[in-house]
Amino acid sequence: MVPVGNENYVRIFDTTLRDGEQSPGATMTSAEKLEVARALARLGVDIIEAGFPIASPDDFEAVRRIADEVGHLPGPGGQPPVICGLARTTTKDIDAAWGAVKGAARPRIHTFLATSPIHMKHKLRMDPEEVVERVVEMVSYARSLCEDVEFSPEDAGRSDPEFLYVVLEEAIKAGATTLNIPDTVGYTTPNEFGGLIAGIKANTPGIEDVFISVHCHNDLGLATANTLAGVQAGARQVEVTINGIGERAGNTSLEEIVMALKTRQPVFGLETGIDTTHIMRVSRMVSNYTGMAVQPNKAIVGANAFAHEAGIHQDGMLKHNQTYEIMTPESVGVTRTRLVLGKHSGRHALRVRLNELGYDLADEDLTKIFDRFKRLADKKKTITDADLEALMADELYQPTEVYRLDGLQVACGTMGLPTATVRLAGPDDKVYVCAAVGTGPVHAAYTAIDQVVGVKATLLEFAVNAVTEGIDALGEVTVRIQYDNGQDEVMHPQSEETSVRTFGGHGADTDIIVACAKAYLAAVNKLLVARGLLGGQPPEESSEVGTATQRVLVG
Amino acid sequence: MVPVGNENYVRIFDTTLRDGEQSPGATMTSAEKLEVARALARLGVDIIEAGFPIASPDDFEAVRRIADEVGHLPGPGGQPPVICGLARTTTKDIDAAWGAVKGAARPRIHTFLATSPIHMKHKLRMDPEEVVERVVEMVSYARSLCEDVEFSPEDAGRSDPEFLYVVLEEAIKAGATTLNIPDTVGYTTPNEFGGLIAGIKANTPGIEDVFISVHCHNDLGLATANTLAGVQAGARQVEVTINGIGERAGNTSLEEIVMALKTRQPVFGLETGIDTTHIMRVSRMVSNYTGMAVQPNKAIVGANAFAHEAGIHQDGMLKHNQTYEIMTPESVGVTRTRLVLGKHSGRHALRVRLNELGYDLADEDLTKIFDRFKRLADKKKTITDADLEALMADELYQPTEVYRLDGLQVACGTMGLPTATVRLAGPDDKVYVCAAVGTGPVHAAYTAIDQVVGVKATLLEFAVNAVTEGIDALGEVTVRIQYDNGQDEVMHPQSEETSVRTFGGHGADTDIIVACAKAYLAAVNKLLVARGLLGGQPPEESSEVGTATQRVLVG
Repeated sequence: MVPVGNENYVRIFDTTLRDGEQSPGATMTSAEKLEVARALARLGVDIIEAGFPIASPDDFEAVRRIADEVGHLPGPGGQPPVICGLARTTTKDIDAAWGAVKGAARPRIHTFLATSPIHMKHKLRMDPEEVVERVVEMVSYARSLCEDVEFSPEDAGRSDPEFLYVVLEEAIKAGATTLNIPDTVGYTTPNEFGGLIAGIKANTPGIEDVFISVHCHNDLGLATANTLAGVQAGARQVEVTINGIGERAGNTSLEEIVMALKTRQPVFGLETGIDTTHIMRVSRMVSNYTGMAVQPNKAIVGANAFAHEAGIHQDGMLKHNQTYEIMTPESVGVTRTRLVLGKHSGRHALRVRLNELGYDLADEDLTKIFDRFKRLADKKKTITDADLEALMADELYQPTEVYRLDGLQVACGTMGLPTATVRLAGPDDKVYVCAAVGTGPVHAAYTAIDQVVGVKATLLEFAVNAVTEGIDALGEVTVRIQYDNGQDEVMHPQSEETSVRTFGGHGADTDIIVACAKAYLAAVNKLLVARGLLGGQPPEESSEVGTATQRVLVG
Repeated sequence: MVPVGNENYVRIFDTTLRDGEQSPGATMTSAEKLEVARALARLGVDIIEAGFPIASPDDFEAVRRIADEVGHLPGPGGQPPVICGLARTTTKDIDAAWGAVKGAARPRIHTFLATSPIHMKHKLRMDPEEVVERVVEMVSYARSLCEDVEFSPEDAGRSDPEFLYVVLEEAIKAGATTLNIPDTVGYTTPNEFGGLIAGIKANTPGIEDVFISVHCHNDLGLATANTLAGVQAGARQVEVTINGIGERAGNTSLEEIVMALKTRQPVFGLETGIDTTHIMRVSRMVSNYTGMAVQPNKAIVGANAFAHEAGIHQDGMLKHNQTYEIMTPESVGVTRTRLVLGKHSGRHALRVRLNELGYDLADEDLTKIFDRFKRLADKKKTITDADLEALMADELYQPTEVYRLDGLQVACGTMGLPTATVRLAGPDDKVYVCAAVGTGPVHAAYTAIDQVVGVKATLLEFAVNAVTEGIDALGEVTVRIQYDNGQDEVMHPQSEETSVRTFGGHGADTDIIVACAKAYLAAVNKLLVARGLLGGQPPEESSEVGTATQRVLVG
């Protein structure tokens, strides 16, 4: 594949679903991944790295569904995105990657092998000659399956440039069409990384026939600057994630690169295919699905990134907006207007507003949302865009409901023993009731749910946000749990270690404890489905109408 | 002041308390600011910008207390930090700044005036000659009061370099000892910003006798790279904030600059006076006090920044820690060990651990914490460092308690009307009881508190986090409120607009609703003190033993 057409076009390779999702606690379900992939296609991403198919059967299946569905969905430029799967340099991995992506209109296999002295010695236990040999063999093999093959020399940022030139030349000869240069540990400075790319461009025979890509990590806060330095030195693909999620301090942020290239176009002279007005919506979707919060002072997508968003006194900023704003909120999809829908708003008004927000709903889904909307409008005078986004996240794209929250009753405070009673509709169409006491109402509710479901999980993360201003706010809760009897089951591509999968859940309600219970039950349902624990009977003490069995020491 | 000694020493100028606190919703009380200033001194910050004294009497008082107390507290290098106050180029501002900082051992006045065409024309409505004249006049005036004077040409990033050389030369002649070059709107790239600093160094007569400083914003995600480019071009002071808080996308992060200079010392050849092992503690303190969350993928201080912190499977990382870790968690004060204190741990064990965490408590404060510790240990099997940090934030450094939460009783769930009853001990030693119904338990509790206190506030932000892993976690709640009848009262130094002050509150409890009520009451108490509303009588309907008067439409 020879670069054609516009030499100033920078390809956006989004790895939110692979390197982003790989970060601890950011696990998404297949349904959530598919939804994010659709949103990425609409955003105009050129390549979607959909996962690491060999990691587990779930991961394979998620990549396959994305290739089959989103791999045929035209983006704003008219073409569907390339769908890419990651593989180590083994035939087993490459076969899995190809099996998962081959249904896409434009499939790609991405294979990698480390080239830094520390990785070759301590991780691979291979000498440089063996590394070159393996690269040639596996890139050739991948190319025999797929026309579009990307190769990455892992930890390139700490590799010997002279050795890199050799490895990359051989990879090109073996059929690689994109060469990706990762700063795997976020170690380099912009001058170093730009110099590395310039050196590769100048010294690698055949480099003019392939794309150079850059992939940076943010351990020292330099991912954006390093990526831009790479682009200025000749890279024409950038590997990024939404909100900069990823392992440790994360990957380069898609939104920062795209908006830097756009805002400073005269400096860079480059363009991308991204429809920037979709940025904020995708950012919120990824934050909701992964449970990875975006800090208010995050560039581009933070709640404070645009001064007018703060909810404080805004006249000054609006008067002088050129003096302090270098890009408009509208350019990234932050709208200044707020929807004022109320209890008398109809189904049509709701559909119109949801369309404006970028949601195109089937009638059945609209009915569900409209129903929730009316119930919320009964409690809350005005419904804002933020409320709608929360309802969408809460109502649609939920995992299979094994157990459904049919009722919750809570008593708590400083004067007694926090107690929760839950009523759950179970998979066998029976209704289970269980009461439990806890250190607080959330603990009590979760303990009662655990007793009905008969699964013991550890709560890893727990966060609540009021999505809207005002004291009658809708509360959004995100939790992350881990199965206590879980065994290692997901493989990490770089460290090759396996780990216990974690499950996230999300709930929204004006009653914060109800939102907490919904979020926890959503995570428990995901766990039950993933672990094939559906058939398990609830323990006897939480049978059809159960009673509290939990005892807690209270001082 | 002529630079002396080590030419490779970079001064850390922390503006968390000025540019950071100025960001919407990050308001701190005077007591919180003083505590942060103490922590900054222990961290080894060279200069603390303590505030903008003319903004309001509260701001003046906070700077004065910091100058008088922290301005005499020796840092790790033995010297107390410079205490700096910001002033526009007016005698009134400069007098206020000097009045506030003069009690410090090493006071500094920082004055600024915009030099970019867009700011001079639209904001200042001054021509360039007038700008130069005003700078000369006001820097001279500041220097007549204080030996240490810093001058910043605001929006230097978009100013004409030739004009900057003239302004800066005149500022030096008028007595400025530090020249700070701000990229006010976060617009420049590292090459541009480094070039700007190099140009200033090469073309400004007298520049060799003063310090060059850089001050960057993160609107395009480039603040860290721009600051490092400035330092490489000759700047020897960097203006930064903890966690990178600040307006819009924030300022340069202290922790990223310090750790980049340290981790890549051979590249930069520079050093700072920061004791990096205090970084994490100060980061958490600032996050707690401001309510500005740190995202998990934030470089250096995010929960995921070090792989081992994730709570998932860690063996891989520990085995290969050199392969994926470029700095150790311990180097920034993240300890791998967790305290295992339990209900049988004594006062001495608690004091020892708190000392290790960097807290040096008076006996009276230790007694308060020990009491809370024992109550928590009754509910929770083991007490971790995170629990202790939460208790410290909750118990110490709270604002004046006008009303104290004496009791709370809540009933909620899907099956009834969420109802809260609060019992508050008031300023007149009377106890007030009030019940209210709401859209959820938090709304109900806040409505009941509002009725007792007789103040109507708008909830701007609301966030809950489980500070510890596990389902019996201690919940930490942060709220931000605004007085509904508030009038503009705080002035913004750059836009010169005034805004309504907001108040934050923080609470921790194993019962999330109790934590919510505590946090809200803390914010309301701050508001009452600040607005001088102490004398007001509670409305009649919430008199000594009151009843619910709140009606809510429930569909």
